[in-house]
Amino acid sequence: MGNRDIKVYKDLMGENSLWAEKIRNLLTEKKVMMVNIIGSPGCGKTSLLEKIASTYADKKDFAVLEGDVETTHDAERLDALDVPVSQLLTSGACHLEAKMVYQALSDLSLDTLNLVIVENVGNLVCPAEFDIGEYAKIAVLSVTEGEDKPVKYPLLFREAKAVVLTKTDLLPHLPFKKDVCLDYMRKVNSTVPIFEVSSVTGAGISSFVDWITSLG
Amino acid sequence: MGNRDIKVYKDLMGENSLWAEKIRNLLTEKKVMMVNIIGSPGCGKTSLLEKIASTYADKKDFAVLEGDVETTHDAERLDALDVPVSQLLTSGACHLEAKMVYQALSDLSLDTLNLVIVENVGNLVCPAEFDIGEYAKIAVLSVTEGEDKPVKYPLLFREAKAVVLTKTDLLPHLPFKKDVCLDYMRKVNSTVPIFEVSSVTGAGISSFVDWITSLG
Repeated sequence: MGNRDIKVYKDLMGENSLWAEKIRNLLTEKKVMMVNIIGSPGCGKTSLLEKIASTYADKKDFAVLEGDVETTHDAERLDALDVPVSQLLTSGACHLEAKMVYQALSDLSLDTLNLVIVENVGNLVCPAEFDIGEYAKIAVLSVTEGEDKPVKYPLLFREAKAVVLTKTDLLPHLPFKKDVCLDYMRKVNSTVPIFEVSSVTGAGISSFVDWITSLG
Repeated sequence: MGNRDIKVYKDLMGENSLWAEKIRNLLTEKKVMMVNIIGSPGCGKTSLLEKIASTYADKKDFAVLEGDVETTHDAERLDALDVPVSQLLTSGACHLEAKMVYQALSDLSLDTLNLVIVENVGNLVCPAEFDIGEYAKIAVLSVTEGEDKPVKYPLLFREAKAVVLTKTDLLPHLPFKKDVCLDYMRKVNSTVPIFEVSSVTGAGISSFVDWITSLG
């Protein structure tokens, strides 16, 4: 007693992880890069995608998967720009899971694509916890949300391979202290690249597109 | 076979509902009104509470329970205004559950209070699904989030007994179409009172405080 060799078994790979692994294998086989864009409702994720679509050299080169609780509004906005897009409706769930993403990916013409951008459900908490087989999670935060979100919702900012600070055109009208916000970001993720952009003026968009296209 | 009287049992009252019921009983006994404020990260919930604190006739009359994933930033902001406040940290969870709220409520001096305002975790999805024994859910949406959030996250707006549209001081700087947003709100909840406020200028705050103090 006390010195027995106790074996411990844990469910290391739940169902979501298995589907995420299938996605990773599919993307590797097809040589497609996939990123997972996560941020609050209304932080400017879809507007950012619209600007990427306008900036990206070859629109037929990338596709978008739009995650939402309800409505096809966001997919319609990308479709209007001739970007291949599918809408993933979660029917109440607060995040995308890998199984749904795998199904949508399998319906795309992956042979002709280089990049798939997934826009997750607007939420700073749960989407950060779910692996959907992406190469990179990208955190989106708008300057209207206040400085302290990186420390209040640290998981996303810790896991992110890039942070996009949006709506910088509104800075003159806000009490937002950018340096304080950047310090908070550095506190949870000291090395993450941070892109300051405005989808209204277009400022900073090309740098972010350059970063995305350099992935892989 | 085929005509048997099959009994179906369901867990009609999960553990959260039981705690929510205990909260309702406690609040009824103590004659305290409790509201549950729900909105995206950075939509202005805490700033709204600060303005309520400055406007409310007797600060010792109400208390605040601050829900967050991490940090005590929000509780510190209310404490600085001499409002009785406790911080509820969910350690990663995306919403408050009734058990934690019950524990925090039990520690308050309920005999001397008339109103408890709970600020839920910043999230438009999950907090709307969890009954914490409140009299009313209040949806907070900022004009920076875009017009279509009520139809993209309909559960909250359907359940809300009031909607607060915040940051109206920024309207001159935004492409936000207020009439479109109000139409979307009416689509999911045709009768809910809607308060348009700015915590920067103070516009609309007193009407909302009048509404809260008239509850019960």
